[in-house]
Amino acid sequence: MFLIRRFCSGFPHIKAITNTAKPGDRLDVRGWIKNIRRLKKNIFFDLNDGSTVRRFQVVIPKTTDTKDISVGSNISASGCIQLAPNGQLELHAEHVKVIADGHITDYPFTPRQQHPPEYVREHLHLRARVDYIAAQMRLRHRALKAIHDYMDELHFVQITTSVLTTNDCEGAGEIFRVQPDSDVLLKEMARPNIPTEHSYFDKKVFLSVSGQLHLEAMSHGLGNTYTLTPAFRAENSKSPLHLSEFYMFEAELAFMQDISSLTSFIEKMIKNVTLRIIESARDDLKFCQEKALGSAFELPWLKAAWITLTYDEALDILIANKEKFKTALKPNEGFSKEQELFLANHCGTPVFVVDWPSDQKPFYMKVVQTKPDRVHALDLLMPEVGELCGGSLRENDEMRLRSHPRLPQDLEWYLELRKFGGVPTGGFGLGFERYLQLLTGVKNIRDVIPFPRYPHSCQM
Amino acid sequence: MFLIRRFCSGFPHIKAITNTAKPGDRLDVRGWIKNIRRLKKNIFFDLNDGSTVRRFQVVIPKTTDTKDISVGSNISASGCIQLAPNGQLELHAEHVKVIADGHITDYPFTPRQQHPPEYVREHLHLRARVDYIAAQMRLRHRALKAIHDYMDELHFVQITTSVLTTNDCEGAGEIFRVQPDSDVLLKEMARPNIPTEHSYFDKKVFLSVSGQLHLEAMSHGLGNTYTLTPAFRAENSKSPLHLSEFYMFEAELAFMQDISSLTSFIEKMIKNVTLRIIESARDDLKFCQEKALGSAFELPWLKAAWITLTYDEALDILIANKEKFKTALKPNEGFSKEQELFLANHCGTPVFVVDWPSDQKPFYMKVVQTKPDRVHALDLLMPEVGELCGGSLRENDEMRLRSHPRLPQDLEWYLELRKFGGVPTGGFGLGFERYLQLLTGVKNIRDVIPFPRYPHSCQM
Repeated sequence: MFLIRRFCSGFPHIKAITNTAKPGDRLDVRGWIKNIRRLKKNIFFDLNDGSTVRRFQVVIPKTTDTKDISVGSNISASGCIQLAPNGQLELHAEHVKVIADGHITDYPFTPRQQHPPEYVREHLHLRARVDYIAAQMRLRHRALKAIHDYMDELHFVQITTSVLTTNDCEGAGEIFRVQPDSDVLLKEMARPNIPTEHSYFDKKVFLSVSGQLHLEAMSHGLGNTYTLTPAFRAENSKSPLHLSEFYMFEAELAFMQDISSLTSFIEKMIKNVTLRIIESARDDLKFCQEKALGSAFELPWLKAAWITLTYDEALDILIANKEKFKTALKPNEGFSKEQELFLANHCGTPVFVVDWPSDQKPFYMKVVQTKPDRVHALDLLMPEVGELCGGSLRENDEMRLRSHPRLPQDLEWYLELRKFGGVPTGGFGLGFERYLQLLTGVKNIRDVIPFPRYPHSCQM
Repeated sequence: MFLIRRFCSGFPHIKAITNTAKPGDRLDVRGWIKNIRRLKKNIFFDLNDGSTVRRFQVVIPKTTDTKDISVGSNISASGCIQLAPNGQLELHAEHVKVIADGHITDYPFTPRQQHPPEYVREHLHLRARVDYIAAQMRLRHRALKAIHDYMDELHFVQITTSVLTTNDCEGAGEIFRVQPDSDVLLKEMARPNIPTEHSYFDKKVFLSVSGQLHLEAMSHGLGNTYTLTPAFRAENSKSPLHLSEFYMFEAELAFMQDISSLTSFIEKMIKNVTLRIIESARDDLKFCQEKALGSAFELPWLKAAWITLTYDEALDILIANKEKFKTALKPNEGFSKEQELFLANHCGTPVFVVDWPSDQKPFYMKVVQTKPDRVHALDLLMPEVGELCGGSLRENDEMRLRSHPRLPQDLEWYLELRKFGGVPTGGFGLGFERYLQLLTGVKNIRDVIPFPRYPHSCQM
């Protein structure tokens, strides 16, 4: 029996064929010709439809029909599955039809040539045709799905926190401002005492840097919540670890009263989600790792027990090794990327750093009872990428929050959450693209997101 | 055996208790007191933790411990499950601990009183404590999950299309413009021949109105793709069906060559996703419907076969009934909301309207071969909400696109998709919040999204 699941469009995709077809099966396939070899009697070509990184070979006798096919062309072919001498399935086609020609002479990506990622990125609209970008996109899909599945199984409610906001959660000032493009509209909507450029919303509005405060509001009625939404930073950074628009996975846990419950949740979550991705995207993960670092690699942190250091303990380790750093130790400003990586390597496992000096952290973090100048913050430091997660217990005492010297303006609503039956919560944010870099070893964060936005670049 | 699944925080949530606990089970619960009755010897209160719309009653003998508990307070209670006289499970508590007081005298939502949605919306940060908003949020979560699950099962790749873009897909001009808030940064990044306000990205950048063109680029390498991301409209609309920021579910199907395959995909998808939501969120859906329209209702369109009309056929029906409309028939401008609803009611099922006059539709739609002034567009008209989906086959002939009189500037990349081994695609966009309104009967779209943004309002 022929069991291959068909595309909605009525033909099977190549991943399904390579997984479940049997010699003798008759079928139609569609896709792009990746490379082509014309021998005396037959033409051999590899066909790809975007469903898998595996090559699928099609063989067809030379006829007048086949003179037009070339690399890059989009074609359909029909015929019979056979076992090739190398043990893999191939299609012995009787008919090939060119749907669209590849015009390969003008095409920016020469077949069988490796193009550096910077060059590929210049042709953003065609990147999905490049094998390793297609593999990254499928892997990214699996990672998004794994997070949603895991959080759903634990009964977290997904809240789509808004992109437009009037609260600058981190207070770092690196924000994008938003207003209607039409001056006519702005004038039409003008109201007394409001600057015309703010007339659409009556206030200055910007793009969210974090959904945390909004999640907290929702967790005060719904319990555990999470969001997986775009976040924005108006930084002038050329770093291979930063983007102007990126995805943030944030969760807020209600009735959370100690930091070790939070670190243990994060450790379990990252391990579990990663195992799901490995299970469901093995080929693509391996392929991305090979392209990034020359060969596939294991993730030793999956089996290790992760450790927790206090800020003071972490600082002691850094001081004892200070001659090894290019960057100076600045105990009042946190750790540099180099120092973060050193800590993770030194410990041989991912490291949670907790009990941070309160003046290095935002206003909303809960003070450590036994150390009034410290807050229940956590940074998760991973090999290769450094900080992957930041989190904290949230201050749930209205009066203590109200007297915080760095409480931003216009946060009366945030204080009211505590006033009316507040609940102790804690949560974290994880940079989704940085997590993908950790899994794949991809050096530049611009290559793990479909449409990277960074200083001086917003293509398409 | 005690089988209740516990929260990550180590205590069971009320949904799990009401589903699986048995008399005699001993357990801890946490949540907010929804209302309270003090009798002679005992105190009865309903506890809610955000996990379910069902009431869960706790009984505790009056002691000195219990004098502080009041409506709105966040508490923990421990005791033993018993069967109440009404047949439902209740907790006979031995201990109650107040985590945070409710301060109900200042609280904007008086217990046991119905507040109109406009009033509730003014206290956006506290909305999650209102039963019907909490139910909406859980339902929204289930709807998001159902879409992701369905699309994943069909092997679509989720592409997070970017919020920031330089392409105005619809060309309607109702866009929000974005720039860094810091003038210092803009000056720092200035480059010759680029206006300072555009110096961050070197171009004018705005918020996406649709991810369609970006999905098309991805589908040209990956096959079938979809996105479920925020979209934006800078309209000055008070309509209960419009938001400035909303979620759009868009899909692009590769190798799609006829419009009937696309309409049949959409019909199957909406029916299947809706059945999953009904299955997984029955209580919340029923509750939302009751709150919105007074009683729960069936969705008769789930069992009906949906019909397709050409634009001309639809117009004929409207002309034959024109005396019934308040809005004038304007055949060159499409249908009014009133006329859309009439068509859906007249047919007794949802209606796909196809073969639209090309001058009413965007440049990228494929011309109908037999009718050169018509394009393969579709509008899906539903009862109650009118247009729910818009879609089309995309023009895949580079030359025909190039000569389109309304081709926007700066879309050379879009033409190149066709030039290099193009593939026929088709797709659609579905307004996610409008879909939730269809399911629940909620009148105002502002009540089916956690943080509604609309003219003169961007709270939090």
